[in-house]
Amino acid sequence: MITTDICIVGAGPVGLFAVFEAGLLGMRCHLIDVLTQPGGQLAEIYPKKPIYDIPGYPVVLAGELIQRQLEQIAPFKPTWSLGEKATDLQKNPSGDFLITTSGGNQIQAKILVIASGLGVFEPRKPPISSLDDFENKGVDYFVKNPDAYKGKKLVLAGGGDSALDWTIFLADIAAELTLVHRSSRFRAAPDSVEKVMALSQSGKVRLMLDANVTEVHGNGRLNKVVVSNKDGWPTHLDTDYFIPLFGLRPELGPLAQWGLNMDGEAIKVDNTLDYQTNIPGVYAIGDINTYPGKLKLILCGYHEAALMAQSAWKRLHPNSMFNMKYTTVNGINGF
Amino acid sequence: MITTDICIVGAGPVGLFAVFEAGLLGMRCHLIDVLTQPGGQLAEIYPKKPIYDIPGYPVVLAGELIQRQLEQIAPFKPTWSLGEKATDLQKNPSGDFLITTSGGNQIQAKILVIASGLGVFEPRKPPISSLDDFENKGVDYFVKNPDAYKGKKLVLAGGGDSALDWTIFLADIAAELTLVHRSSRFRAAPDSVEKVMALSQSGKVRLMLDANVTEVHGNGRLNKVVVSNKDGWPTHLDTDYFIPLFGLRPELGPLAQWGLNMDGEAIKVDNTLDYQTNIPGVYAIGDINTYPGKLKLILCGYHEAALMAQSAWKRLHPNSMFNMKYTTVNGINGF
Repeated sequence: MITTDICIVGAGPVGLFAVFEAGLLGMRCHLIDVLTQPGGQLAEIYPKKPIYDIPGYPVVLAGELIQRQLEQIAPFKPTWSLGEKATDLQKNPSGDFLITTSGGNQIQAKILVIASGLGVFEPRKPPISSLDDFENKGVDYFVKNPDAYKGKKLVLAGGGDSALDWTIFLADIAAELTLVHRSSRFRAAPDSVEKVMALSQSGKVRLMLDANVTEVHGNGRLNKVVVSNKDGWPTHLDTDYFIPLFGLRPELGPLAQWGLNMDGEAIKVDNTLDYQTNIPGVYAIGDINTYPGKLKLILCGYHEAALMAQSAWKRLHPNSMFNMKYTTVNGINGF
Repeated sequence: MITTDICIVGAGPVGLFAVFEAGLLGMRCHLIDVLTQPGGQLAEIYPKKPIYDIPGYPVVLAGELIQRQLEQIAPFKPTWSLGEKATDLQKNPSGDFLITTSGGNQIQAKILVIASGLGVFEPRKPPISSLDDFENKGVDYFVKNPDAYKGKKLVLAGGGDSALDWTIFLADIAAELTLVHRSSRFRAAPDSVEKVMALSQSGKVRLMLDANVTEVHGNGRLNKVVVSNKDGWPTHLDTDYFIPLFGLRPELGPLAQWGLNMDGEAIKVDNTLDYQTNIPGVYAIGDINTYPGKLKLILCGYHEAALMAQSAWKRLHPNSMFNMKYTTVNGINGF
């Protein structure tokens, strides 16, 4: 049994910053994340992607932001259950929460914070026979490290922002790049579509529209895909990598059973005060929550974390006056 | 006449970030600030002070944060009226706002954003005859650059957080430091008081309690102060600097006449949606606003700026569907 002040489900940028805000107020945190490293999507899916809208960072790589946030919370010594899902939530007689993880751990906490972003997400996989056999052997569902594709032959598939953004980005470094899309229309930002069209006209990208990848072949490792057009005519393409980018299938996972008020896949919270859910003492911050005017921006999750921490502190100290303290000059007093 | 989409009163960190969020949505900004450089307090009062609670920055100097924010908004080419107060607000027949500055400039804008922090602030000056004569000649009301005090004799006055924080910080670098306080009790964070007491016991700080600085002397430049105890007995102290730190007197200035709903010195806003004031099209973000649970943190102002920008965009494009676009991969498209 792990005992803590605040149990945070989700160790992405917002969950990590919650540790900082809680720590400033003297509250200890334990984090649970299904991924095996902290940082959520930023560390797992796009660590090398530049982010431009973190205040004070004209540009920062997603993985670097996470590194700096880990450095920022180090004085507050959070504890971790990584590679585990939060599966069960109970209240014990004292009013504390009891959270059980898929790894069989139990965490007793006075406050529960859900900061699980898109939830437990899975890539949408195209229905191609024996695709599984080549996973991590030429078939990748995420672009984790673009450098791996330098000078390689690539086949990408998809028609959304992710597929187009990575086509634009990887066209520069790949030996050759083919984008396969089942329609002739894209569901993506107009200027991304324009850029891909320009890359196609200049010969840097081979565009195969109204077509699907229908077969994958290789000998231990992927070396060929078959693309079929809408009449079923096959084209054989030698390739080093096949990267289907059909988006993530967000799954709330076991949280869906916890009695939280939902709006679709998002948890409704009280944005008029403290981002608390309908269950007192349970907060939801970052991309997992929703309220009028909600923006799914990391910087908004940071703010939500700060207000959550103040509210949590007041729950834990119902008879104390809160004395706001700034970090300038005195710095950070860790645990 | 300057014509723009958004006129921002206040060029502190929150006003600057509003330029970024507006720019992402294609809106241009003009900033007005009474200070002659951007950055508000951070640049003017404590550029060398470390800040620890900006997400993703384990520590950043206030002035450095402002520099990075200026770099971040450069693509959006804001325009400026620096060294000017916003004095008058009118609506013209088209519904646009017309803002007049103390410099005689007129700005026509569709949206007005007030991000003026503490307002037009003035240091509280102790009533000491001829104090004015030594301003910037040994009498400083702000610690702008701590290096200037290296190896010097200092007399500080005050009993609040600012006086104690700077006493702790400057005790390390000054040749000698005296802290004068009119009472024997401090109105400051308990651990700051403890630290100052410890510095006093170790002889690094001379503490003069129940006393006031009553005279300043010098020959062109300050070289002596007289401290009187409660019985009126004087102590003559040779010193290089006298730094009275009695806080800032925030003044809303002319804004107070604009018909905004106020709560004390703060502007009430709608935190349930977009941080708009009671005047449609006028928003207040950052330390100048108030709402239930408000925290005067820079990071909260960043969030408020983001939601304000979305709301402003919808006001300017009432018939368009908003298409959220992330900055990753595609980067920033400036003006």
